[in-house]
Amino acid sequence: MHIVITGGAGFLGVRLARALLARATLALAGDAPRPLTRLTLVDRIAPPAALAQDPRVHVVTGDLDELLVPDTSGHARAMPPDADAVVHLAAAVSGECEADFDLGLRANLDATRALLLACRALGTRPVFVFSSSLAVFGHTPEQPMPPIIEDDTLPTPQNSYGTQKFMCELLVADGTRKGFVRGRNVRLMTVSVRPGRPNAAASSFLSGIVREPLAGERATCPVPPDTKVALSSPARTIEGLIRALEASDADWGPRSALNLPALSTTAGEMVAALARVAGPEVAARVDWVPDASIARIVGAWPAGMNARRAARLGLHADASYDDIIRAYLRENPVPPAVPAQP
Amino acid sequence: MHIVITGGAGFLGVRLARALLARATLALAGDAPRPLTRLTLVDRIAPPAALAQDPRVHVVTGDLDELLVPDTSGHARAMPPDADAVVHLAAAVSGECEADFDLGLRANLDATRALLLACRALGTRPVFVFSSSLAVFGHTPEQPMPPIIEDDTLPTPQNSYGTQKFMCELLVADGTRKGFVRGRNVRLMTVSVRPGRPNAAASSFLSGIVREPLAGERATCPVPPDTKVALSSPARTIEGLIRALEASDADWGPRSALNLPALSTTAGEMVAALARVAGPEVAARVDWVPDASIARIVGAWPAGMNARRAARLGLHADASYDDIIRAYLRENPVPPAVPAQP
Repeated sequence: MHIVITGGAGFLGVRLARALLARATLALAGDAPRPLTRLTLVDRIAPPAALAQDPRVHVVTGDLDELLVPDTSGHARAMPPDADAVVHLAAAVSGECEADFDLGLRANLDATRALLLACRALGTRPVFVFSSSLAVFGHTPEQPMPPIIEDDTLPTPQNSYGTQKFMCELLVADGTRKGFVRGRNVRLMTVSVRPGRPNAAASSFLSGIVREPLAGERATCPVPPDTKVALSSPARTIEGLIRALEASDADWGPRSALNLPALSTTAGEMVAALARVAGPEVAARVDWVPDASIARIVGAWPAGMNARRAARLGLHADASYDDIIRAYLRENPVPPAVPAQP
Repeated sequence: MHIVITGGAGFLGVRLARALLARATLALAGDAPRPLTRLTLVDRIAPPAALAQDPRVHVVTGDLDELLVPDTSGHARAMPPDADAVVHLAAAVSGECEADFDLGLRANLDATRALLLACRALGTRPVFVFSSSLAVFGHTPEQPMPPIIEDDTLPTPQNSYGTQKFMCELLVADGTRKGFVRGRNVRLMTVSVRPGRPNAAASSFLSGIVREPLAGERATCPVPPDTKVALSSPARTIEGLIRALEASDADWGPRSALNLPALSTTAGEMVAALARVAGPEVAARVDWVPDASIARIVGAWPAGMNARRAARLGLHADASYDDIIRAYLRENPVPPAVPAQP
């Protein structure tokens, strides 16, 4: 079995790759379990060397749009002819898309379209997991959003990233109906705690306000403490993506998107959890400095999900943000200078 | 005031052009009423000569995508620098989009995107009326649709045309949020009775089963008599488009699409109305010959609309299909050889 991951050198891509490689077999779309024999990681940058050294891993680096241009034999470098499944994680993030409308359309809408058409060219109807986002939902005073989102709640995106993700969902659903792919539209929640450095996502601080204080650095929270957020740990998020790969068409259900489960909390509760898990002196490293632009984007996102379809697939939200921090600490031990309180 | 109509030589475009030219003034987006001084009709074909001869009418013929490529001065032929509003009617129809996926993406999604970006280039935030369609809604056994559609019902399109229309709605909404245009997403119902000849729309027969028998010709109804349909007369449809041009931002409401009102009826009731209005011998010219492909597309469309937003704007459905046929006969008198019964 050959799986392609776009954005395969990113945080979720690498984590998904490791999880897939660790599995003895995968039951793709409910088919008979088979071992993963090849994993192609497509990204602008190379994945960690340890991952690239796995004999099953094939690395393709470059811009996705260029890698999807067919060569003279009709094949695109990012889409191997024997691909059984694609997990499409590559995207421009929300902050980038809000700053540059055209970039967002190219990197999100056009790239997803090109990937779908490359799958069509295979003629083998590969499984196509599209990572959409809770950012498809948006709230404004003129167009209020229900406090709890259902799978069939009408998305009314309030940022370009969410708009593009929703447009891609529709395209993948239509490509599924047309028999180009077996599409799985999965809406990811805000993933927290992401390791590494801040990025241009408007939600970046929702990892930073925990990660940086744990590393002994100050961090800025740009939204008020009572800002409601819908989060998922990296582990739960990867679990959702793998379930999307493995669910049969019948179990998966409609071609419209499935909302992954979310832990509903607030920025203030997150920092309170940090105080409980790591100590008040760690939590005191968070500076509350409002940023109207970020607050507008994040404040328009949903606060809670009634993820019924996900629950039927056995997917559930993290139990508490305290647990999420503890899991992060297990995977990213704090240096001795800044001891975590167990 | 300068208004651009794409698809301006089509049935609705010509009718809208005539209605606008007949008005003394227009209150564009609730602004102070002004006379229409220029009307640019963009289409692949020329409009009727009588319309083109109006000194206010400017005709631009060619493919929309080519007419939207800016020249060396940065202007696109289809988008005059002084345009105050655009009504975007040009589209590939449902049958074409279902037969040719790539054509549909180009003619519907790409053209709408190019038109939106041409409006952005003006820097004047023109009113942008996008003609979407009830085809954004779709029903399947796996994904049932409520029998009555609300303005906030989640569209789950079951054909490529509806998918592309819904994607365009989202793009226009985001362009409105970004301040490129003052967008008005309007979902048109199936327009009946269209004069002229059949076209490649899956819904074409919903005019043909009345128009052809009235002209003394036989017509084929490709769906069972109990197939539910949501219709609007040409007059009510044009009324909706003009209301979209004139409504203030506040009266128009959210950037998401507004469903126009629909007369809910069935194919069988339509032919029964034809018998009442024009006589049983006219209605007997309808042959019921099922076509699975058309029945699948049309049967998945909604049967009824609770068009609350439209009602608040003073828009209402036609009272009966009998009335629609009578209005068609007034505008398209039947030749003496095939007398209509009054």
